[in-house]
Amino acid sequence: MTLTLHDNSGLLGEEKLDDLCRKNLEYLDFGNALDWLLPEDSEMIEDCEWLGTIVRQNADVLVVIGVGGSNRAARAVYECLGRKSRVQIEWVGLNYSAKEMNALLERLKYKEVYVNVIAKNFKTLEPGLWFRTLRNWLREEYGEEYYSHIICTGTPGSDLQKLSEDNDYYFLEFPADVCGRYSTFTPVALFPLAVAGFNIREMIDGAKVMRMVLQKPGNNPALMLASARNYLYENGYKLEMLSFFDPSLEHFSKWWVQMFAESEGKCGLGLFPVVGSFTEDLHSIGQYIQQGEPILYEIFLNVLNPEDRQIDLTDIPDGFEYLDGKSFNDVNKAAFKATLATHSERFPCFRIDVVSLDEYVFGELFYFFMFTCCLSAKILGVNPFDQPGVEGYKEKTIASLKANI
Amino acid sequence: MTLTLHDNSGLLGEEKLDDLCRKNLEYLDFGNALDWLLPEDSEMIEDCEWLGTIVRQNADVLVVIGVGGSNRAARAVYECLGRKSRVQIEWVGLNYSAKEMNALLERLKYKEVYVNVIAKNFKTLEPGLWFRTLRNWLREEYGEEYYSHIICTGTPGSDLQKLSEDNDYYFLEFPADVCGRYSTFTPVALFPLAVAGFNIREMIDGAKVMRMVLQKPGNNPALMLASARNYLYENGYKLEMLSFFDPSLEHFSKWWVQMFAESEGKCGLGLFPVVGSFTEDLHSIGQYIQQGEPILYEIFLNVLNPEDRQIDLTDIPDGFEYLDGKSFNDVNKAAFKATLATHSERFPCFRIDVVSLDEYVFGELFYFFMFTCCLSAKILGVNPFDQPGVEGYKEKTIASLKANI
Repeated sequence: MTLTLHDNSGLLGEEKLDDLCRKNLEYLDFGNALDWLLPEDSEMIEDCEWLGTIVRQNADVLVVIGVGGSNRAARAVYECLGRKSRVQIEWVGLNYSAKEMNALLERLKYKEVYVNVIAKNFKTLEPGLWFRTLRNWLREEYGEEYYSHIICTGTPGSDLQKLSEDNDYYFLEFPADVCGRYSTFTPVALFPLAVAGFNIREMIDGAKVMRMVLQKPGNNPALMLASARNYLYENGYKLEMLSFFDPSLEHFSKWWVQMFAESEGKCGLGLFPVVGSFTEDLHSIGQYIQQGEPILYEIFLNVLNPEDRQIDLTDIPDGFEYLDGKSFNDVNKAAFKATLATHSERFPCFRIDVVSLDEYVFGELFYFFMFTCCLSAKILGVNPFDQPGVEGYKEKTIASLKANI
Repeated sequence: MTLTLHDNSGLLGEEKLDDLCRKNLEYLDFGNALDWLLPEDSEMIEDCEWLGTIVRQNADVLVVIGVGGSNRAARAVYECLGRKSRVQIEWVGLNYSAKEMNALLERLKYKEVYVNVIAKNFKTLEPGLWFRTLRNWLREEYGEEYYSHIICTGTPGSDLQKLSEDNDYYFLEFPADVCGRYSTFTPVALFPLAVAGFNIREMIDGAKVMRMVLQKPGNNPALMLASARNYLYENGYKLEMLSFFDPSLEHFSKWWVQMFAESEGKCGLGLFPVVGSFTEDLHSIGQYIQQGEPILYEIFLNVLNPEDRQIDLTDIPDGFEYLDGKSFNDVNKAAFKATLATHSERFPCFRIDVVSLDEYVFGELFYFFMFTCCLSAKILGVNPFDQPGVEGYKEKTIASLKANI
């Protein structure tokens, strides 16, 4: 991937950006403090692949129970690239919706079902509630053998590991030192992706190469973006928008939103992350971006060679004769260029180009944004690894339910 | 529906809100300038029902081609309530994605397919491109009779009407005086909903009752919300969040985002609309809401009696014993109350209660937010019915494609 600045607003030129990078260079050295972002544990990878093969050979459906950091990375890849095995993944445990639970159980009828429950400490209510219901469903469906349909992903020593041991479920390790939303390169994401037939080693390779790129002081895209976003934030920008012209990136953008909102939104600080799924959203928030309050700048995630299709010719005059001989991607590229040109007149835009979307590129993107987020939080002066505001709501909910027994 | 203020932040109490409503009362009188928001045209309703019945009796799938205002209202109802006939709706024409087009044509195989293309003036590229491709597909599938599978919704005198007449397609009227995103109570939304088996007359009834409520000066929820949001905006709030604990409201929230972003985001002004789909997003942007920069306040859309399900008991100790005897909705309500209590300590929260979700309630909600948006824009001093920033991008894209012939 490459990162380039497009700015005709006068706020942030190449020279200014170079200055900012020089000023922030001191923040780039993390020593080995971020080694856990990419655990190179070959045994862990082999476990994911081995168990992934077993499930892939037997299951029609893998139900993944996990909320927030426990599902967004894997789901981003799955929803974008489409499954590569016959196993379909259902992503649940996101809420307390009886409607969604009832609809899921309807869809699971007559299917061979496995369940992967992912919860770092297994105190969170959503996975607790969904796992209990699905555990009972599996027992009714498979009788005594039900236990072989359950894979738990949790930290060693947690209640989930105990539950797993007591009942003979498979157990995968959620490394204790990895914070939930940074768990992309652990079994949290790697196991479901292995089941769905993805090449998880290629994803890790993409991340490894990106890690090398981000260690260098010169022409460092993480240093550029982290420096720019802190500068823009200081200068009154409140919203950072991730925009893309490939709607299959929508679940990646949800991963990205959590990464930045939870890592930086504290101490009364932080850019608020928002998403533009174009061209659809150009017919909606596009108006605000162009002429609303000037508090927003944009990062475009651009895919150079996506799936394409020639535009049909027609003998019925429809007023779109200028489309003849072009492809869908020709039109999409024209829309992207027009949007980038228009928006960069008003505010600085960053453009990230990737050649195409595959496991390797997702590895690059995940690592790039995780590292950029850590670096940016360091410049901002906040701890990117806690989420005290989320814990508060959880405790209050549980306390009220317990009081109500 | 009812609207109540919950504010322990000290910023906006009942008394202050009363003052603001009194001050803004003069804006409430629109004369008959907004009559077109709810056209009471019984012939139009009968046409939608008559043609809806024909399609419902013959189709497996209705493909709706429409972007922005041409699909979001109908889709909000359909995605929330689930179809009530055997006809499935595919919502397309949202972008230039070859991947989505190829996947759609795969899904349409062996199905009986009808196409409804919705475009006010039929200059917009997305519906033009998708309609051309699907028109050719229908011709290959049905030969000479293909024309009876197409329903065009456009303004009288438009290119789409001409295309329709020349080729014997069905034609429904997109009233010329109705701006796209306000087209909920016209064939734009009513026809697809009639095909899917919804009671469109109940939806209109809900809107009519809401219209009466909003004409009264006292205890007027639109006046309250429009006054509050302008006051909060003046006082440094930049983001208005629509939050809900029923994820099936996600498509309604997309309609809501467009309504406010396009109507108010101009002249360098406007609150930026964002969405919280809880509890999932509490594990993501929840952190920012609670402890990030204080630039956000919230409107909760709360469903009092949603679909429910008893929580299973279990003989496997799982650490969630306090859930025994409760229902999904008990837990969801506890989470809602904990969230409202916590968030309203930090900023003013509004709470909209609806008894349940059905056509009538959607009629109320659509009318309420459309009217509130017009009133709020009037107080802010912008024209809620144009979108000059969107037109700019469209023209630039088309010009570059034409230059490239």
